[in-house]
Amino acid sequence: MTAAMHLKLINPNTTQSMTDKIGACARAVAQPGTRIAAVSPRMGPASIESHYDEALSVPGILDEILAGEREGVDAYVIACFGDPGLYAARELARGPVIGIAEAAMHAASFIGTSFSVVTTLGRTCNLARHLAERYGMDRFCRNVRATDLPVLDLEKPGSDARRIITEACRQALAEDRSDCIVLGCAGMADLCGDIADAVGAPVIDGVTCAVKLAEALVSLRLPTSKRGDWARPLPKAYSGMLSPFALHG
Amino acid sequence: MTAAMHLKLINPNTTQSMTDKIGACARAVAQPGTRIAAVSPRMGPASIESHYDEALSVPGILDEILAGEREGVDAYVIACFGDPGLYAARELARGPVIGIAEAAMHAASFIGTSFSVVTTLGRTCNLARHLAERYGMDRFCRNVRATDLPVLDLEKPGSDARRIITEACRQALAEDRSDCIVLGCAGMADLCGDIADAVGAPVIDGVTCAVKLAEALVSLRLPTSKRGDWARPLPKAYSGMLSPFALHG
Amino acid sequence: MTAAMHLKLINPNTTQSMTDKIGACARAVAQPGTRIAAVSPRMGPASIESHYDEALSVPGILDEILAGEREGVDAYVIACFGDPGLYAARELARGPVIGIAEAAMHAASFIGTSFSVVTTLGRTCNLARHLAERYGMDRFCRNVRATDLPVLDLEKPGSDARRIITEACRQALAEDRSDCIVLGCAGMADLCGDIADAVGAPVIDGVTCAVKLAEALVSLRLPTSKRGDWARPLPKAYSGMLSPFALHG
Amino acid sequence: MTAAMHLKLINPNTTQSMTDKIGACARAVAQPGTRIAAVSPRMGPASIESHYDEALSVPGILDEILAGEREGVDAYVIACFGDPGLYAARELARGPVIGIAEAAMHAASFIGTSFSVVTTLGRTCNLARHLAERYGMDRFCRNVRATDLPVLDLEKPGSDARRIITEACRQALAEDRSDCIVLGCAGMADLCGDIADAVGAPVIDGVTCAVKLAEALVSLRLPTSKRGDWARPLPKAYSGMLSPFALHG
Amino acid sequence: MTAAMHLKLINPNTTQSMTDKIGACARAVAQPGTRIAAVSPRMGPASIESHYDEALSVPGILDEILAGEREGVDAYVIACFGDPGLYAARELARGPVIGIAEAAMHAASFIGTSFSVVTTLGRTCNLARHLAERYGMDRFCRNVRATDLPVLDLEKPGSDARRIITEACRQALAEDRSDCIVLGCAGMADLCGDIADAVGAPVIDGVTCAVKLAEALVSLRLPTSKRGDWARPLPKAYSGMLSPFALHG
Amino acid sequence: MTAAMHLKLINPNTTQSMTDKIGACARAVAQPGTRIAAVSPRMGPASIESHYDEALSVPGILDEILAGEREGVDAYVIACFGDPGLYAARELARGPVIGIAEAAMHAASFIGTSFSVVTTLGRTCNLARHLAERYGMDRFCRNVRATDLPVLDLEKPGSDARRIITEACRQALAEDRSDCIVLGCAGMADLCGDIADAVGAPVIDGVTCAVKLAEALVSLRLPTSKRGDWARPLPKAYSGMLSPFALHG
Repeated sequence: MTAAMHLKLINPNTTQSMTDKIGACARAVAQPGTRIAAVSPRMGPASIESHYDEALSVPGILDEILAGEREGVDAYVIACFGDPGLYAARELARGPVIGIAEAAMHAASFIGTSFSVVTTLGRTCNLARHLAERYGMDRFCRNVRATDLPVLDLEKPGSDARRIITEACRQALAEDRSDCIVLGCAGMADLCGDIADAVGAPVIDGVTCAVKLAEALVSLRLPTSKRGDWARPLPKAYSGMLSPFALHG
Repeated sequence: MTAAMHLKLINPNTTQSMTDKIGACARAVAQPGTRIAAVSPRMGPASIESHYDEALSVPGILDEILAGEREGVDAYVIACFGDPGLYAARELARGPVIGIAEAAMHAASFIGTSFSVVTTLGRTCNLARHLAERYGMDRFCRNVRATDLPVLDLEKPGSDARRIITEACRQALAEDRSDCIVLGCAGMADLCGDIADAVGAPVIDGVTCAVKLAEALVSLRLPTSKRGDWARPLPKAYSGMLSPFALHG
Repeated sequence: MTAAMHLKLINPNTTQSMTDKIGACARAVAQPGTRIAAVSPRMGPASIESHYDEALSVPGILDEILAGEREGVDAYVIACFGDPGLYAARELARGPVIGIAEAAMHAASFIGTSFSVVTTLGRTCNLARHLAERYGMDRFCRNVRATDLPVLDLEKPGSDARRIITEACRQALAEDRSDCIVLGCAGMADLCGDIADAVGAPVIDGVTCAVKLAEALVSLRLPTSKRGDWARPLPKAYSGMLSPFALHG
Repeated sequence: MTAAMHLKLINPNTTQSMTDKIGACARAVAQPGTRIAAVSPRMGPASIESHYDEALSVPGILDEILAGEREGVDAYVIACFGDPGLYAARELARGPVIGIAEAAMHAASFIGTSFSVVTTLGRTCNLARHLAERYGMDRFCRNVRATDLPVLDLEKPGSDARRIITEACRQALAEDRSDCIVLGCAGMADLCGDIADAVGAPVIDGVTCAVKLAEALVSLRLPTSKRGDWARPLPKAYSGMLSPFALHG
Repeated sequence: MTAAMHLKLINPNTTQSMTDKIGACARAVAQPGTRIAAVSPRMGPASIESHYDEALSVPGILDEILAGEREGVDAYVIACFGDPGLYAARELARGPVIGIAEAAMHAASFIGTSFSVVTTLGRTCNLARHLAERYGMDRFCRNVRATDLPVLDLEKPGSDARRIITEACRQALAEDRSDCIVLGCAGMADLCGDIADAVGAPVIDGVTCAVKLAEALVSLRLPTSKRGDWARPLPKAYSGMLSPFALHG
Repeated sequence: MTAAMHLKLINPNTTQSMTDKIGACARAVAQPGTRIAAVSPRMGPASIESHYDEALSVPGILDEILAGEREGVDAYVIACFGDPGLYAARELARGPVIGIAEAAMHAASFIGTSFSVVTTLGRTCNLARHLAERYGMDRFCRNVRATDLPVLDLEKPGSDARRIITEACRQALAEDRSDCIVLGCAGMADLCGDIADAVGAPVIDGVTCAVKLAEALVSLRLPTSKRGDWARPLPKAYSGMLSPFALHG
């Protein structure tokens, strides 16, 4: 049973080349009946490398979810490794919403006893650790390793990013004694297969994992539960430039 | 991309009617290209309701995995809520192996902030709690509730099982304040949709979840990592009636 | 040594009567040399009762922190029990930033072996639990209890809020066997003393606690560490209506 | 009060020389009134070095417990560091059943603030960590170190096992800063005293610890509780070559 | 092998009738070769029912350990359920020192999946919970229940203590669904067998458990490790009435 | 509002030069209205470097608290990094009692995501780790590092203590990747500012933190809760040289 479904993939940063790249990765693993819309929000940071950037990516994400609900989207993927706005998005969405850090970490726990995350800047490592804890995946996470690559270097053709990331994965396997690698940035999605071949171990990209998990939950007719925290927010007044975000009863 | 794949669904108990039922549930959610073989082992207990039963279901499961590897099976589902023999199975298998407790608990964590397990006999409740801990899902598991139904009552047409389980799900939602329900026995797979309708909340069956997760991992070309604990077991002598289980180099 | 200091108290919701009320509570406990500016942001929700409201309160908070840094503010208090935007605010601020949930929970751990939180809507209870975990205070938090009062009812003269909250505190002490009570909403700050008298146990309001902690850290010359996660965010482009938030090198 | 008691020591692998050796170690510490029967099962692996080997050692262990109950055995020791089949065995036994990993880790926690485990193959390290967690002993376990010695090398007179293990214990004390050492394999039982002398720190062998704990529990008239999980398994049909394991009402 | 050994049982309170009673219980389970000296310290509280009493019981305990080391004592039992001064005592002692809470909780974890503690005053319940955590036994401890009996009521012939404690044990089994009971006061040692008979479940007294564990460790030649925290304290000056406690180099 | 208050600072060791030094540090940060009495107890060890020393420092501390209650002291600071006797002191005191380890660790968690403790002798490291756990601060504590300086070397003018401690702080920042440093001994209080300047990161001294926290709690009219564990101890007989410690009804 492969019903047609409409999946919206939100790249929370506003860099279109990255959005196009991860859209392509997503389509490469989707089922025949899945239509994938890959979008960047209308507002927000060019890349997400701090709590500040992350917090300010959320209005744009929620704007896309609100639009998606009007369009009848079946499920969403939030394609930034910090999973920004995940719980707020779940309040708005009827169907499932999956973050790519969440997806990658869960997938890792099915195929190995331990994983290492290889990410961009060192200042985001604690963020990944907090997510691992929130999802119950800290038991499996041996380490979070920074390459100190800025996110947008992943978009620069001449950068040394691929080599640096591959090397960091190799180190993680050897020093952390992890069974597999989780890539810590949506912008690394296109490198996943090549790195796996190079290092001889499973390498997990959250974008493609999240697409398959979202498809799975839609197939299983499992929506976001509206019984608890993730019930639809109450209608109320919003002021200033955020007044368009007011929900109505 | 929906490649053809061969998925083996192992019901660890030897009750054929249950195997047939859960095979049907699995096929109802599978992708068009997925071929599902639902089997019961050649040896073992008629139902699994104790550590003793569980331990003695494992040789039969491993026998099926060994056969599956010879037949080129792409992924396995172990369809008993105790996930018996999961790690030993992963040592033998090249592709992924998914347990239904594992699958259901992870799925629950994507669509709610908390779940309650509704299961059969009280003496198996700790087993479910240990699994939740092992998978990092204890953060989300508010309670494990026994109905005190023996497993095989689920196969008896005249039994009151459906009503009793539905009632226990209702109580769990009200008293545990959980967002969704995880059904704690493969034999409840066919009741999932009806109970969800009756109680007005997501109800999760591990058999169908595990099928979709196994399909997802195969699509993502993510095998079981062979770098750590789950490397293939070393060849060695086995004696007595277990001598057929000896692996060769 | 009581140096003059400038403390900015940010009520993350845009309801001015609440801002005025908690400003008065703050001033009542401040040292003579402390100047307190109590503000509501220029944008955002009228009250915060969901992850959605909370996420959308953060741009307004960060706008106030950015302004505060230009004005030479010594320390900030974020006066909503969800501590929205706390880590992003710390990235921007040179001095300390204290959330009221954080302040109240820590204070409780100094004067009792356990506390119960009494808050507004049930859907925010998990949020308080997540904060307790993040701060290491879950060991002391016996329960989070909702009164099911909407936040803005606390501002309505004729509402029954005081009686309902007092009753919930009494129940918490009796049923949870907690040593003290933490009030779970900034809007309850003015009720703290009366409830303590009524229930005969310490009752803790985060607004006043946060003011005293902020004063203490400034007196101790302890700024926010800029060595790790909370270093100043990198300059980069922001687009759409959030472009004013772009930081410059 | 030293009553006569009958203690059965089950070496879960089928290597008789190891069974004889650990039987001798057990007898050397037993009380005068304790009769120790050291046995290998009638079926199963020659050594246990994987989840697969461990799972397939359990039927033989349970076969020995069933026989022991018919013979009036007072307590059992399962003498493999993975404590295979421990909970299933407790379901069958009236008296106590002690695993050697459990016994050694608990003993370590009485005489030091921390211990390191020194074991055989690296692939079994996670197994030891899982046991430490299950028993609540992970707080005390600083490290699990593999020597990469196959289990049966411990039985080879000319092997370098003693030197390699002693060296690993020395490293553990120096690098992990542990207070004492737990030997991670029953086959090391005879080395315990010599290694302790060589490294100048307490070295703990689980076989002898388990014997003393079993004697203690029998002296204290403390049986396995039959109120919960470890009640006797329900009678039911078993099929195939495992049909002799069916219990009768 | 049952060597002669000298075991000192220290009742940290100064109530001689309780010391005599628990000495008798200890001797009833000891091996033939074990000589048990049961003592009360020369200074300290008549009973231990607060952190204050507990702290002030420690000088007397340490005084007895210092004397015991001069007398060649092989092992010590500290017979108060708060295990007062345990770590300081281990610094002084060459042989093992066992606390009765520690002993009872560990024993409980060998014979059941869960236990409830039944103790005296409610204000000591957190103390028992902290010990359970420190020993890694919180996983097994379902509840700590107070009877609100003062400790010295256990010594009064006409008191209703036996009935009240038995009733609390019954409630614990029913409501906590625990597999066994741990008695939370040394003064209950003589009631253990009768209560077990009355409630039909294992009931564990720490005094007798600690004696058997101490004997076991001495038989195994396992001393207190002197490599870490529990090395002998450094010699130094002590002043005032505590000057006799100064150790010399 | 800065009410006059009387704060008693207890240095649990009997070395008067250290008492004077930390009294001066405390007064340097106190509010104008705060009167600080810095005392050493009348009995106990010259320095605290073991569980034994710590246990025997407690009678002297409690003696000072008893005197303080008669004198109307508003709050207490226990100025030894092991926080000896903290809970017993809280039982006696009406107002708040703050330990310096507790104060420093909490302060660290407000200004950084992680801290390292730099302390004196290695044998006290576990003690600091246990406190971090007890206070919920283990999440933030990356490491506890010993300098192997005896406590009283901090009082010797010619010692190399300042250089050694500064170097250990530098190493901690670099190797542990911590955001800030907690000084692990009251005797280091006077070095705090200089080391912070030298290493370029926040360095936290517990003595001054505890003074500010105590002032804050008194200003907030938050006393020690008397509802649970920390209710006043029951009156009872004390014997031997501790008989003056008997409380009366």
